[in-house]
Amino acid sequence: MMGALKGDVRTINGSNDMQEDVFMDGLMMDFPLTLDLVLRRAEQHFHHKEIVTRMPGKGWHRYTYGEMAVRAKRLALALQSAGIKEGDCVATLCWNHYRHLEAYIGVPVIGAVLHTLNLRLHPDDLAYIASDARDRMVIVDESLLPLLNQFKDAVGFEKIIVVTEQGVAPDGMEDYEAFIAPFEAADYVQIPLRENMAAGICYTSGTTGKPKGVVYSHRSNVLHSIGAGLESGIGLSERDTLLPVVPMFHANSWGLPYAALMLGPKLVFPGPYLDGETLLDGFASERVTVSAGVPTVWNALLATLAVKKDDYDLRCLRKLIVGGSAVPVSMIQAFDEKYGIGVVQAWGMTELSPVGTVSNLTSALLEAPKADQYLYRAMQGTPMPLVEIRARGDAGLAAWDGETMGELEVRGPWISSAYLNRPDAADRFTEDGWFKTGDIVTIDPVGYIKIQDRSKDLVKSGGEWISSVDLENTIMGHEDVAEAAVIAVPHPKWDERPLAVVVRRAGSSLDEATLRCYLAERVAKWWIPDAIVFVEEIPKTSVGKFKKTALREQFSEYQFQQSN
Amino acid sequence: MMGALKGDVRTINGSNDMQEDVFMDGLMMDFPLTLDLVLRRAEQHFHHKEIVTRMPGKGWHRYTYGEMAVRAKRLALALQSAGIKEGDCVATLCWNHYRHLEAYIGVPVIGAVLHTLNLRLHPDDLAYIASDARDRMVIVDESLLPLLNQFKDAVGFEKIIVVTEQGVAPDGMEDYEAFIAPFEAADYVQIPLRENMAAGICYTSGTTGKPKGVVYSHRSNVLHSIGAGLESGIGLSERDTLLPVVPMFHANSWGLPYAALMLGPKLVFPGPYLDGETLLDGFASERVTVSAGVPTVWNALLATLAVKKDDYDLRCLRKLIVGGSAVPVSMIQAFDEKYGIGVVQAWGMTELSPVGTVSNLTSALLEAPKADQYLYRAMQGTPMPLVEIRARGDAGLAAWDGETMGELEVRGPWISSAYLNRPDAADRFTEDGWFKTGDIVTIDPVGYIKIQDRSKDLVKSGGEWISSVDLENTIMGHEDVAEAAVIAVPHPKWDERPLAVVVRRAGSSLDEATLRCYLAERVAKWWIPDAIVFVEEIPKTSVGKFKKTALREQFSEYQFQQSN
Repeated sequence: MMGALKGDVRTINGSNDMQEDVFMDGLMMDFPLTLDLVLRRAEQHFHHKEIVTRMPGKGWHRYTYGEMAVRAKRLALALQSAGIKEGDCVATLCWNHYRHLEAYIGVPVIGAVLHTLNLRLHPDDLAYIASDARDRMVIVDESLLPLLNQFKDAVGFEKIIVVTEQGVAPDGMEDYEAFIAPFEAADYVQIPLRENMAAGICYTSGTTGKPKGVVYSHRSNVLHSIGAGLESGIGLSERDTLLPVVPMFHANSWGLPYAALMLGPKLVFPGPYLDGETLLDGFASERVTVSAGVPTVWNALLATLAVKKDDYDLRCLRKLIVGGSAVPVSMIQAFDEKYGIGVVQAWGMTELSPVGTVSNLTSALLEAPKADQYLYRAMQGTPMPLVEIRARGDAGLAAWDGETMGELEVRGPWISSAYLNRPDAADRFTEDGWFKTGDIVTIDPVGYIKIQDRSKDLVKSGGEWISSVDLENTIMGHEDVAEAAVIAVPHPKWDERPLAVVVRRAGSSLDEATLRCYLAERVAKWWIPDAIVFVEEIPKTSVGKFKKTALREQFSEYQFQQSN
Repeated sequence: MMGALKGDVRTINGSNDMQEDVFMDGLMMDFPLTLDLVLRRAEQHFHHKEIVTRMPGKGWHRYTYGEMAVRAKRLALALQSAGIKEGDCVATLCWNHYRHLEAYIGVPVIGAVLHTLNLRLHPDDLAYIASDARDRMVIVDESLLPLLNQFKDAVGFEKIIVVTEQGVAPDGMEDYEAFIAPFEAADYVQIPLRENMAAGICYTSGTTGKPKGVVYSHRSNVLHSIGAGLESGIGLSERDTLLPVVPMFHANSWGLPYAALMLGPKLVFPGPYLDGETLLDGFASERVTVSAGVPTVWNALLATLAVKKDDYDLRCLRKLIVGGSAVPVSMIQAFDEKYGIGVVQAWGMTELSPVGTVSNLTSALLEAPKADQYLYRAMQGTPMPLVEIRARGDAGLAAWDGETMGELEVRGPWISSAYLNRPDAADRFTEDGWFKTGDIVTIDPVGYIKIQDRSKDLVKSGGEWISSVDLENTIMGHEDVAEAAVIAVPHPKWDERPLAVVVRRAGSSLDEATLRCYLAERVAKWWIPDAIVFVEEIPKTSVGKFKKTALREQFSEYQFQQSN
């Protein structure tokens, strides 16, 4: 029977219009992965769930996902009425709060593009990126008007919408509530969206060069949101109460706003209050189960807890997602052993929407000794489903042996393929379509990555690589060290040698010789920095990372006292 | 600044080739969601994880995901070498075992289409569906050759590959091991796949009419697999040990084979042994954490446990996913209270890949009384992320009030848009692109669906609807009832009235009057069946559901004794 049919044109559904290659397609719905789906899910299944915001003055604003959806639609209608069309960029300059969430969903569902401006950038950079993205309008917190005023004229926004306390916006600007007031959610009609349409823009706050625009699509945001719900991701669910400390103006807010709308946790926004005490008060009073932020935040939290542990009931808190910089084992251990809170490290970049890997313990590690677990929890983890990794060293692809270093390359459906208006940055992508992260890693046999360094921060000593990050973490393991950064300094014999820049803990009188002995017991002899310089402070970027460019500049004339 | 630029052609990457509408796209990788990604994930991250199979003779076969991947590639090469090209269908007629898994992934990664034949169908039906799908080859278990021999000539397979015990296939057929033996995994080269390509075919084992072919795409299988990892799905992860009782020849095996390869649990295949004792032995000895199957299986398990509870250590078992038919509260309660095992009900259809909803408890229900929890756990649950639901009654879309009945309609990226070669079945889809499930449901305010009936099984009494399923479950709640089915019988006054067909528990002498009193306390008076008939057995379909068509035929001449 088959023989007679071979070579025939195969048709589906009995239609003769369909050609042979059509048979090859599945007969599944052409159902685009677009954010209107996320909005509908939020309003249909989570309308009763709470969204709580810490307001200026520290009181709480409370409403529900249902009310949020209504207001997001009113914002969408207001923007359409003001002339915003598909592909137009609408900027925000806001802290984490409920109106920012309304913009997160209300802007892209009309096909417009949400551009979250990073309020920690210099006004000149903000002028550059808002112009580069051609932002037509901006939604801005009243408290951030002084910042906006420094660059708004350089951009020429058509409309400035101000999130105010009293409903009064400055002349020439519009109050957010007044802006959405004339519109009724019932009038909202969902336009059809394509899944590859742009939905959002974030600029990388690179430590060198001009910021570069990363353009998220509806598809990438939807897929990334589902990833957040995986046990092998961050395991977020409707049963959680999520407090995102990570700013909504930074790296797509780690995808958490869309993940929340997709998965339905109670949401708690911290507003502008990111200090240890206010956060802890929020964790306790709102019974937060999951939070997410950079190590600096959790360090501050630990410091507060050290003196006020009994003031806060943290029994609900089960997971702190930490990203942005590597987490020292000591921090993971402190949260675990003193407070029973699990610190889960995630690694990502703005270009990855931003989560690439999460350091969950595998079934094998769950049965391993605690010390081994800490070792792995301090790594950057294994890739989320749909993300693929490899590392490239000087000799081609690096073996997955946990030892060979190489630059991490990644690919997947929520990873950048290019930067906005930046053909000069094409060298960040390989010819076969992978993104070069710039991070030097080792990959272990099951795919745990450990970041050894930023590519440009590696110390290349006599043809071998020294991981500045590893050295920093080892130095910071000393009880008298508050912070430590390691940079490469030119060396006549070895090309480069490490210089450690160290901040002592308050009250300590740690000296170079002591630290040198401490290191001798912990790292290879040739890794020991040629010099250790004590300083009062290490310069940091807008998101709290060590600003190594500044350090390198500061020590550009540095000469080692002795040659070895 | 913006003003001057409005109306300009907007370009990305500085290229002038790109037109205005291109700017609207995100700058994310064009990364297709195809099953080769799943194969790579399995081999890169889970190569050390075990896959265990209960073999004929009840011994265990053990190997790893890594060995599985190697052998799947060898199968892929063998199929290519035998002339299988993109879009060609390769059938399987197999139980749940490791070689079936090799086919699950080895067939679609070369662009071919895996067609899982349901070994419980009649040979005439198998001949029909294998011909309808134009299956070129078949992989068959040695033990199922007697079945294959009844329809193979009607299909004319080019090649029959036999999974044998001793490596000897009958004349004119090929041994599976001999078939893949000449090929080396290292020679495997992944061809590019498109995400909308067909990856698999399953036929619905409908109770009426010819089976209809559902064609899965790579995209639908990949997305569905991620769904399985969600807390709000079935929460599968690398930490689990999964024993899929649901056959790999039925409804895409609930998507579990691909979910496993994506997420990395230890896998335990039961082979052909689905009886309570052998399953329990497997659960205990392999420390299974999650299993999945139809209620019949779990009923058998409960019966075995009732007499041999102490023989099995089930402390690892945390979740039984139940689907295929509605689960009575009594079963959920028995597992929960006697054995501490969570029964999670899922609802789906072959056309949904197959999972549509899962009855996980929401945060609110977790704080509700146990009795309320059981009530909700006995419902079909809320839709997985990416699946949308609505119900249509006689008066348009039904309100989400938990009371108004309507036919459930669904849409989403893993839901059928058409059947293979069946333009006559176009009425199963709405004009605006939803699939009509044929299930009559109520939807509660947060989207919990409760199946009241199959559309065709509803009893339409005096213009009102009576749920036969609800009645059946209520009747089966009586301790002396083993099974009960309710069908509509024509009635001169009320159009239709319910007739209950009941199987007594062994040793019981339950009579109609007693059961009638029992029902009077539990359902509306007009729902009480006009007659209750006791029988020895209720006819069932190949997958263990009540065969109502057969019952209706059996009672087609039935006349109620009294009119009411």
